[in-house]
Amino acid sequence: MASTSSSSSSSSSPADIIAALEAEIVTETARFNELRLSGGALDDSKKALSELKKALALAKNAGKEKKEKAAAAAPAPTQETGGGSSSAPTKKTKERLLLKTAKGTRDYGPAEMFCRAHIENIVKECFTTYGGACLDTPVFERKDVLTDKYGEDSKLIFDLMDQGGEQLALRYDHTVPLARYLAMIGGTAPQSKLWQIGKVYRRDNPVMSKGRMREFMQADFDITGAWDPMIADAELLSLLCTILSKLDVGEFTIKINHRCILDGIFEVCGVPLDKIRSISSAVDKLDKLPWAEVKKEMTEEKGLDPAVADKIGEYVKHKGGPELLSQLETDSTLTSNKSAKQGLSDMSILFNLLKAYNALDKVSFDLSLARGLDYYTGIIYEAVVEGSAPPGFKSANAFAAPPGSTTSAPAAAPAPAQKKSSKKTDAEEEEVDESQVGVGSIAAGGRYDGLVGAFLAGAAGVDPGSKEGKKAMGPGGGTPCVGVSIGMDRIFALVWPKWVERGGRTKETMVFVMSAGDGLLAERVGLAAELRAAGIKTDFLAKSKPKLAAQFAAGEKDEVPFAIILGTDELAAGLVTVKEQRWKFEDGKKVKIAAADKGTQVKRAELVEWLKDTETWKEWNEGKW
Amino acid sequence: MASTSSSSSSSSSPADIIAALEAEIVTETARFNELRLSGGALDDSKKALSELKKALALAKNAGKEKKEKAAAAAPAPTQETGGGSSSAPTKKTKERLLLKTAKGTRDYGPAEMFCRAHIENIVKECFTTYGGACLDTPVFERKDVLTDKYGEDSKLIFDLMDQGGEQLALRYDHTVPLARYLAMIGGTAPQSKLWQIGKVYRRDNPVMSKGRMREFMQADFDITGAWDPMIADAELLSLLCTILSKLDVGEFTIKINHRCILDGIFEVCGVPLDKIRSISSAVDKLDKLPWAEVKKEMTEEKGLDPAVADKIGEYVKHKGGPELLSQLETDSTLTSNKSAKQGLSDMSILFNLLKAYNALDKVSFDLSLARGLDYYTGIIYEAVVEGSAPPGFKSANAFAAPPGSTTSAPAAAPAPAQKKSSKKTDAEEEEVDESQVGVGSIAAGGRYDGLVGAFLAGAAGVDPGSKEGKKAMGPGGGTPCVGVSIGMDRIFALVWPKWVERGGRTKETMVFVMSAGDGLLAERVGLAAELRAAGIKTDFLAKSKPKLAAQFAAGEKDEVPFAIILGTDELAAGLVTVKEQRWKFEDGKKVKIAAADKGTQVKRAELVEWLKDTETWKEWNEGKW
Repeated sequence: MASTSSSSSSSSSPADIIAALEAEIVTETARFNELRLSGGALDDSKKALSELKKALALAKNAGKEKKEKAAAAAPAPTQETGGGSSSAPTKKTKERLLLKTAKGTRDYGPAEMFCRAHIENIVKECFTTYGGACLDTPVFERKDVLTDKYGEDSKLIFDLMDQGGEQLALRYDHTVPLARYLAMIGGTAPQSKLWQIGKVYRRDNPVMSKGRMREFMQADFDITGAWDPMIADAELLSLLCTILSKLDVGEFTIKINHRCILDGIFEVCGVPLDKIRSISSAVDKLDKLPWAEVKKEMTEEKGLDPAVADKIGEYVKHKGGPELLSQLETDSTLTSNKSAKQGLSDMSILFNLLKAYNALDKVSFDLSLARGLDYYTGIIYEAVVEGSAPPGFKSANAFAAPPGSTTSAPAAAPAPAQKKSSKKTDAEEEEVDESQVGVGSIAAGGRYDGLVGAFLAGAAGVDPGSKEGKKAMGPGGGTPCVGVSIGMDRIFALVWPKWVERGGRTKETMVFVMSAGDGLLAERVGLAAELRAAGIKTDFLAKSKPKLAAQFAAGEKDEVPFAIILGTDELAAGLVTVKEQRWKFEDGKKVKIAAADKGTQVKRAELVEWLKDTETWKEWNEGKW
Repeated sequence: MASTSSSSSSSSSPADIIAALEAEIVTETARFNELRLSGGALDDSKKALSELKKALALAKNAGKEKKEKAAAAAPAPTQETGGGSSSAPTKKTKERLLLKTAKGTRDYGPAEMFCRAHIENIVKECFTTYGGACLDTPVFERKDVLTDKYGEDSKLIFDLMDQGGEQLALRYDHTVPLARYLAMIGGTAPQSKLWQIGKVYRRDNPVMSKGRMREFMQADFDITGAWDPMIADAELLSLLCTILSKLDVGEFTIKINHRCILDGIFEVCGVPLDKIRSISSAVDKLDKLPWAEVKKEMTEEKGLDPAVADKIGEYVKHKGGPELLSQLETDSTLTSNKSAKQGLSDMSILFNLLKAYNALDKVSFDLSLARGLDYYTGIIYEAVVEGSAPPGFKSANAFAAPPGSTTSAPAAAPAPAQKKSSKKTDAEEEEVDESQVGVGSIAAGGRYDGLVGAFLAGAAGVDPGSKEGKKAMGPGGGTPCVGVSIGMDRIFALVWPKWVERGGRTKETMVFVMSAGDGLLAERVGLAAELRAAGIKTDFLAKSKPKLAAQFAAGEKDEVPFAIILGTDELAAGLVTVKEQRWKFEDGKKVKIAAADKGTQVKRAELVEWLKDTETWKEWNEGKW
């Protein structure tokens, strides 16, 4: 990549310099990530990256005015310099290609994918352990399938260009496609447990280092169909506890609330019916903003009576366990509300079940949890870890204030920078200070009993609330569902640094076949083919006559535990030499443990058996790595 | 779904009837697929589907003129019927939602996903056995990354809508994103084996039943970097042989050719330089069209001299093994061409290596193989099975003709219907007779040595062919690569019918916990949690007080091998009852083998150990299912 560096010479235009620098930053970032694993040469790369970023900032400032003027004068940015005669000052003849992935997306290289596969395997294993079956839906849907399902966030949907066919859009989550699928298959599989793992898409403001992406992987598990109250809900919360306990995300809490309780609170506090969803979405921000800010949004932006806001504040500051439920059950104002009463009854059944699951200590009944999406109708939940909240902001602390002044406390933490900028268009790169942003919730979900029914009514062309709608939806109002979505990229953002620290392998190759002199290509190929056929993951260097040192170096790069060395004389005698290789982690670096032995001579005919009888093979086969 | 049926009554408009019928066909198709597995009630569904399709065709014809007139008169199709007072003749108040997936895409339900996961596991296992490491790139790329990489097929790229940011498009394959990734990481990992499994997108004419989709899964394996000649190429062909042998696709052949040989043939036959790629793409159709048709395209459409076409025909009719290579090596016209000579030398090395891999019998050196994509520079290949060619058309038979009239033979088979219609826009559904279309190649690939270099040159803003370009690409002209793409949906289309026939399970659940009377919900939950924690996949019915028969029915639906029955008295004595359940396949239907025994009483404290000691558990754990 030295070429891009040399071409950003002093005589190029500011736009070229910026493009070249951006390309180099991308390259250097990739190299930096690669190096993080190997442990060495890290500082050099870090330094180079920081210098490049500085240079880019300078170039951007310097070139800003010039660029704008130039853009007005010359609409087409491509500069063809005619023949080959013109030499200096600009050598280039074409517009530079910006070598990068789309905004908010990234590649995952081999080391990262090894870690991601490990995470995915744990999640899948838990999904099937809980009786789940897999479903796969397309990455894009007909646009009208997604319309009116996400409330305010609908603007974040990625649309496909109309190329003379259907109006399509990338899926925003797995929940709506699942509901569309259930509506399509109709009555044949109403009671089921379905899981999906795949990428979903949101045109949101990305914070890459925290796993907040525009393309991100979600692992969903949904229990569909009519069951007895709260059993499926408890099953899902137990599943989520199990998964998060098995993953290396640290201490976690699952915040739970119930839409019916929340709606009941809003009603008894005096929120006008048409404001309930928008006030709910304000409450939802209490994990990132202090109460004073949220109250301001309710009253100044959304026109709520401050007295009503204060009443809400009194309710939503509460969090706890079954004791909070008991307290609310004695609140006659609340229990007189039909919706709240239904919610409280559900929560009571839920707590009893969670006790049977031994999962009570991981959940927190949190009245401030609201969840943005429109489609929830019952229990809602969100799993958080310490890194979920922005730094310096304890989500448990949104109400931190001098006693007695709870609802009018000053900001307990600086408002995160990204809140404001999210309203800009993204034609230009926004500046988000990633150090001021948290990972956010790592999993979330809830009950959505109306979504499948809405599709059935929609397909019949009738309103879900009408008599015809009820008929179209069938008994029970369609298929009631409850589900959870696990944010795989956010979990990866938490697990990856620890994974790197432990210095795990990035490949499963068990054997590296080498030759001592003479090349012996056909013999290496033949042995590799034989070992692979026996299920032993094997590699060799794709050179005709490689040096032994080069072969060892290649095998060591992959930390392959067995080096098998072929020699002409040995082969004639039906023998090969096996050298076991071991590694240790020293000062943040993987190093091979030097071994004095020259290896073991093994009969070629018995090699497969011999390998499968070693401790190393057995350990790997049992997944102890 | 009875509602949609009833609403397509006689008084509705033709458009409504069509929409309702389409929705019902979708529903019925899904039901049909579901039923295929269960084996029963299949005929009913088949009949219903056929009748619906007939009704739809009738309605479409009848409604065509009416619809067009109505569309001209009323631009907005939404019909609000004002208040609730109007009753008959139309009850609907909204536009119907068309409940379907986007054209060329589909859902995969649990039974299908179980089979697909099985296929994917085999492929992944082979990939890692050959030393591969995983890579993941985003589903969409900046549009300019994909531009100029696919030749004629560029028009099939799915573009995203410009929503105020970058110009984006869905990836068309894994090869170009891989090359972009390699260019971005620069010199740090030039020699590597990388695999990717994921979906790619083409706005092509879908043939769903043959696995020819607009969204489809490809599994790619690529060997990157400079190695000694043809070793990486042979390694890939061996990998492909291994994978296809392990999958249940039937007899397969890997057709091989070399772009340099093909280009040499075109040159010595007298094809003008600017026509080489378009004549090459005509030759590529010889697996679907007879020679006479291909010749017509060359001469009439593309203006090639018929004498030149005949000369090409003499060459490209050849296929065989090493003996064909020997024959070509004695052809002095061909060997005098530099490009052809290089290609023949490569093929000679390749055949020697394939012998060492014991893979020679699976490959066919086929001079008619051309591959459409622009980026190939060396060896190219394509794996085919019997179902690859259209029915009635033997791809080995493209030249079938009376002796002596080889190059002017009449069509050996009817031209496939989809060839013509692919030029239409897809605003309206095209009619493709799926019975006349083959699965096509199930895997394909080749060497593309220039693609990474082209990205490096592009990022430097210079022409790859220029002096500056060479400098930008670095030594060796960037990173030479060779790769293979496996068409997972086409393989699924071949494997799935056999999978259904064998009647495999669709879930891995091992235990179903039941209660005999009294509900015992907390006890069932507790035992399920315990078994799951021990790694035993367990389920139970999410009802408070379910009947025993309902619980058995639910467990039998999933073919769960162990039913564990809880009773109050037994639990008090520390016991549970375990009943092993077995199934057999009878007359295309899975039936439970009736067992006289009442089950075994096992100590609850020893249950996990007891289960893991059964033959059934061991068999499942070893993957024998």
